[in-house]
Amino acid sequence: MYRTHTCGELRIANVGQTVTLSGWVQRIRKMGGMSFIDLRDRYGITQLVIDESASKEINNQAEKLGREYVIQIEGEVLERQSKNNKIDTGDIEVRISKLNLLNASLTPPFTIEDVSDGGEDLRATYRYLDLRRNPLKNALILRHKMAQETRKYLSDNGFLEIETPYLISSTPEGARDFVVPSRMNPGQFYALPQSPQTLKQLLMLAGYDKYFQIVRCFRDEDLRADRQPEFTQIDCEMSFVEREDILQIFEGMAKHLFKSVLGREFNEQFPRMSYADAMKYYGSDKPDIRFDMRIQEITDLVKGHNFVVFDSAEYIGGICVKGAASYTRKQLDELTEWVKRPQIGAKGLVYARVSEEGIKSSVDKFYTQETLAKVAEAFGAEAGDLILILSGDKKKTVVMLGTLRIEMGNRMGLRDNSVYAPLWVYDFPLLEWDDETQRFYAMHHPFTSPKPEDMDKFFSNAKEDLEQVSANAYDFVINGTEVGGGSIRIYNADVQARMFEVLGMTKEEAERQFSFIINAFKYGAPPHGGLAFGFDRFCALFGGQETIRDFIAFPKNNSGRDVMLDAPGPIAEEQMKELAIKSTL
Amino acid sequence: MYRTHTCGELRIANVGQTVTLSGWVQRIRKMGGMSFIDLRDRYGITQLVIDESASKEINNQAEKLGREYVIQIEGEVLERQSKNNKIDTGDIEVRISKLNLLNASLTPPFTIEDVSDGGEDLRATYRYLDLRRNPLKNALILRHKMAQETRKYLSDNGFLEIETPYLISSTPEGARDFVVPSRMNPGQFYALPQSPQTLKQLLMLAGYDKYFQIVRCFRDEDLRADRQPEFTQIDCEMSFVEREDILQIFEGMAKHLFKSVLGREFNEQFPRMSYADAMKYYGSDKPDIRFDMRIQEITDLVKGHNFVVFDSAEYIGGICVKGAASYTRKQLDELTEWVKRPQIGAKGLVYARVSEEGIKSSVDKFYTQETLAKVAEAFGAEAGDLILILSGDKKKTVVMLGTLRIEMGNRMGLRDNSVYAPLWVYDFPLLEWDDETQRFYAMHHPFTSPKPEDMDKFFSNAKEDLEQVSANAYDFVINGTEVGGGSIRIYNADVQARMFEVLGMTKEEAERQFSFIINAFKYGAPPHGGLAFGFDRFCALFGGQETIRDFIAFPKNNSGRDVMLDAPGPIAEEQMKELAIKSTL
Repeated sequence: MYRTHTCGELRIANVGQTVTLSGWVQRIRKMGGMSFIDLRDRYGITQLVIDESASKEINNQAEKLGREYVIQIEGEVLERQSKNNKIDTGDIEVRISKLNLLNASLTPPFTIEDVSDGGEDLRATYRYLDLRRNPLKNALILRHKMAQETRKYLSDNGFLEIETPYLISSTPEGARDFVVPSRMNPGQFYALPQSPQTLKQLLMLAGYDKYFQIVRCFRDEDLRADRQPEFTQIDCEMSFVEREDILQIFEGMAKHLFKSVLGREFNEQFPRMSYADAMKYYGSDKPDIRFDMRIQEITDLVKGHNFVVFDSAEYIGGICVKGAASYTRKQLDELTEWVKRPQIGAKGLVYARVSEEGIKSSVDKFYTQETLAKVAEAFGAEAGDLILILSGDKKKTVVMLGTLRIEMGNRMGLRDNSVYAPLWVYDFPLLEWDDETQRFYAMHHPFTSPKPEDMDKFFSNAKEDLEQVSANAYDFVINGTEVGGGSIRIYNADVQARMFEVLGMTKEEAERQFSFIINAFKYGAPPHGGLAFGFDRFCALFGGQETIRDFIAFPKNNSGRDVMLDAPGPIAEEQMKELAIKSTL
Repeated sequence: MYRTHTCGELRIANVGQTVTLSGWVQRIRKMGGMSFIDLRDRYGITQLVIDESASKEINNQAEKLGREYVIQIEGEVLERQSKNNKIDTGDIEVRISKLNLLNASLTPPFTIEDVSDGGEDLRATYRYLDLRRNPLKNALILRHKMAQETRKYLSDNGFLEIETPYLISSTPEGARDFVVPSRMNPGQFYALPQSPQTLKQLLMLAGYDKYFQIVRCFRDEDLRADRQPEFTQIDCEMSFVEREDILQIFEGMAKHLFKSVLGREFNEQFPRMSYADAMKYYGSDKPDIRFDMRIQEITDLVKGHNFVVFDSAEYIGGICVKGAASYTRKQLDELTEWVKRPQIGAKGLVYARVSEEGIKSSVDKFYTQETLAKVAEAFGAEAGDLILILSGDKKKTVVMLGTLRIEMGNRMGLRDNSVYAPLWVYDFPLLEWDDETQRFYAMHHPFTSPKPEDMDKFFSNAKEDLEQVSANAYDFVINGTEVGGGSIRIYNADVQARMFEVLGMTKEEAERQFSFIINAFKYGAPPHGGLAFGFDRFCALFGGQETIRDFIAFPKNNSGRDVMLDAPGPIAEEQMKELAIKSTL
C-alpha cells in the first residue's frame, strides 16, 4: 500500500499513529540538525521532519531530494511545537522512519506555488505542472462539483442525459464547422456539432420530454480572447412546456448550484427584464445588475438649448455615478479620451458634478442652473454625484452608455466578484434586418418561435411589423455575463414555413438545407423548448474569475493550438491518401 | 400549462379529478357509440374515452385523429369497468371534455409497437420514430441510470470527473485516427482521441490522483458487427495504487451498478482467473462462467493408440456437455460441419456418448472401453453426457474448443441473459511476438507495466524470457464479454526506455514518437494505473441485449453512416479551400 492517509488528512487526533504517506516534495528546509519537508498531494500538505533520531540512511536519502520528487514515507505523527493554522494539517508533523524515493524530478521550469513565476506560454507548454498549482486544482474541483450537482438536480427532476453523436452532418448554422474526412465514404465529411440543437429537437419528437447533456461543442471561429474552439454546454430541452415552465426549472437549477456549490441561498425569484428595458436602462442585453447606475434618457430636457451637439442628436442620455463628483478635471479628460477610443466611438463626453452649491457641468454656458437641476432630478442625483452624458444615434449611444456604465462600475468598485446577481432577459427581437443584403436574419436560429401574441405581425408582409416581432426567447445572465440562453421552438409546420419565407428562402432552398428536420417534424412534433448554458463560463463565474481557461484542464491558445500536445500537427501522406484528400499548400 | 399529469401517472386515487394530459395517439378503437384513445408519452399510456356525453365538436375532432397525432385533452378521471392490469394506469380512464389537436402526423412508415414491422434500414432512417418504441426508450433510460450511478459511486469515492480535449494530436497507437484539418494552422490536423490514455496519465502526473470521465472515443476502423466509430468509455485512472487497490474500487463500482440499476446484490468477491487458466480451461481470455463445461486436456490419455489424427496432434482436448448424450447422429454431423467452418477451422470432431451401458464414440475402433472410461472420468462425465473432442495445434485447438463451448452453452440454454457472472482476468502476457516482422508488440500498449516479479526477465535478452513476462494488466468480464480492461502503468524512466527497446525502437524513434509524454514523465511521475469500461457494451449487458446499437440514441451503420442525418456528406469547395485541402477523387 502506498499510503494510509493523504497529505491533507492528519489531525491532532492522529498523534502517536504510525502512518504512510506518498506525495511530492513541495519544499525542504534545514534548521540546525533537523530537516523539514513539505509533502504535497491533491488533498493538502503535511510537514515531515527528519530529526536527530533518523538513521544515516534516511539523512543520506533526504540529502538527494529536490522539488517535485515523489516519495513515500513512514513515520509517527507528532504534535507540532509551533503550529501552523494556515493549513488543515498544521497541528501535526510526521517524523520520518522510512523514506522511499518513488521518482526523481527535473527542476520544474517555474515554481509550483499559488502565484507562479512562470509566464503564460511556459505554463501552457508544461500544463501538467501548472495543473499542480492550487488555483488550477481548485478550479477543476469546482468544475467537477458543478457537473455533479447539475446532473443531480436535472436527474432528480426527471431529465434523462442522452448522448448525441459527435460525427454528424454539416449544418448551415452561423459559425464554421470543423469537419472530419471519412475514409469509408471517400469525398465525404462528417462535421463536429456546433451544438446538438437539431438532435435534441429530434429527441423531443421521439418523446423524450426532458433531455439534458453536458456536452462538448465545436466552432471553427477566429478566436477572440477567452473563446475556445471546443467548449462545453449544459444542453437542455423539454416538451409540453411554455416559457414559464422552462424558467422555473432552470432557475431552480441555478439556485441548486448556488446553494450546493457555493453555499449561497437565493430565496426570491430571480429578477426578469425585457430585452427592451435591458437596452434602455443598461445599454446591454446582458445587464450587470450588481449595481444600479441606470441609463436615463434626457433628450427632451436638454434638446433645444442651442447646444448644437445635443440639438442635432437623436438621443441624449447619461448615467449618474454616485459619489464621483470628486473626479478631477484630469480624470474626466482621461474618461473623455476613453469613450472616444474606436472600441467605443463616442464623439465626446459631457459631465455635470452635483454639489451642495449647485451643478457644475462642461456645458454650463448653454444651460441654466434650473435646467441642470431638472437633469439632476431626472437622475435622482444628490450632492457628491457625477453625471456623465453621451448623445447621438439612439441605438449606438445607448450601447456606449452601457459600456461606460460597466467601466464606471469597475472604477467605483461596484463589481465585486463575490456578489452574484442573476437575471433573466426575455422577449428578444426575432429578426434582424441587414441593410447590406436587404433581408432578415434570425437573431437566435430559424427554429425559434415568435411570441404567440406577435403571430399576426409575423404573418404580415410589412417590414415594420416583422421588425417588431418578439422571439419567445430568454437568456440567463449573471453579473453582466450571458451564462445561458434558449427559446420556445417552432413546432407548427406553417409557422416554420413562414420563418423560412421571412428569411428569404424559397421552399426548395429550405427543403434542401433543412430537409431531414422538416421531414421529421411532419410526424407529430410536440410543443417544446429549451436552453443551453455555457458550462466553462458558468464555472469561471462561480470561481470568481473572468477567464475560462483555468477551468479547462487542457485548453487551447488563441491560435487554436494545444502547445503542450503540439496539436494540430502534420499527418502522413499515406493517411491523407486513405482519406482521399491532399494538401493545397 | 400543457399537462397536469403524465400518461403514466393516474391511479384509482385520482378518480373524480379533472386532469389535463398531452401525448401521442397510440391507437383508437370504436365500440358502439364510444371511442377509446390510447394516449402515450414517455411515462406510459392512459386510456381516454369519448362517450355519449361528449360534444359534437369533440366527436368531430376525434374523427380526424390518426396514429401519432399529438393532442392535449382535459377530462375527468373515471374508474374503468374492465381493468387492465398490464399497465400501471389500467385501473382508470379519462373521459374527454376538451380536445386540442397540437399537431398532426403523417402515417409512420412502421408501427410504433414493442415489436415493430419496420426493417432495420427503415427504422434507422426514421430513428426519431424508432426511439418512440418502448425497447429503445427503456434502453436509453437504463443508460442514463448507469451513467448517473457510475458518477455517483466514483464521486463518492473521491474521483474527479475531468474533461479532456477532443481536438488532440495524432498518436502512433493501434487503430487509425479520425483527423480534423485546422483552418487556422493550414496543412495541420487535429486527431480525435482513440482514448484519453496519455491525457489521463498526464493528470496523474499533475497530481489528480483519482480521475474519471465518461467520454467519447473515436476509432476509424473497418466496422465489424456491433462496432461503432464513436463509442463511450468510463475512463479511470488512480495514483499511488497497486493492482489490488484498483480491483477493489472498480469491483465496488460494478457491485454498486448491479445493485442500484438492476437490484442485484453481489456479496462475495468476484471470481478471479489468470490469463493462463482462462485459456486452458475456457479457450478464451474472456470466459463465460455462467456455466462450467470446462475444457479438459486428454493428450496423454488418448495419444499412442494408433489413431493417426490424435497421434499426430500436439494437443487433444474436449468438453463434456451435460445431458447431451441424446444428440442424434444428424445433430452430431451438423455440429461437425459447424466446427469445420472456416470461422472455426477444425479438421473434424470426435464425440463420445456416455450411457449406463458404456461409452459409444466415433473412434471406438481405436480405443478400448477401459481407455474411454478413463477419458470419461477425466471429464467427470456421467451417464447422459456427451463428450466433444478436438485435436491439433495446442493454441488453436484450445480456442476452437472455447468457441465450441460457447456454442454448446447456447444450444443447451446455459447462457441466460438474466444471469450475471462477473470475472476478473489478470496476468496477461506483456508482449506478443510477431513472426512476420520478427519483433515484439505490446499486447496492451507500451505504457503497461510488467509485473514486478517478472522484472528480471523483462531486462533479459532471451526471447523465451521476454515471452514469459506477464503484464500487470487486468480485464473485467461479464458473461463472456470484455466490459473493461486496464493496467498498472510504467512510471520509471528506465523501465519505459527498456519497453521501447524491447519493442524494437531506437532511442531516437521513441523520443520522436512519444517525446512529450517521455519529457513529462521526467517531472516526478507517481506510480499509477487505471482502466476503462466500454460503456455502450456495459449498458447492453445490463439491458440483457447482445447488440449495443439500441443503447445509443443515434448510432451509425456498418459503413459508418448516420442514415437519418445522411452523414457524412459533401462539403463546399469554399470550405475545402479554407482548410487548405482538396479531394483526390
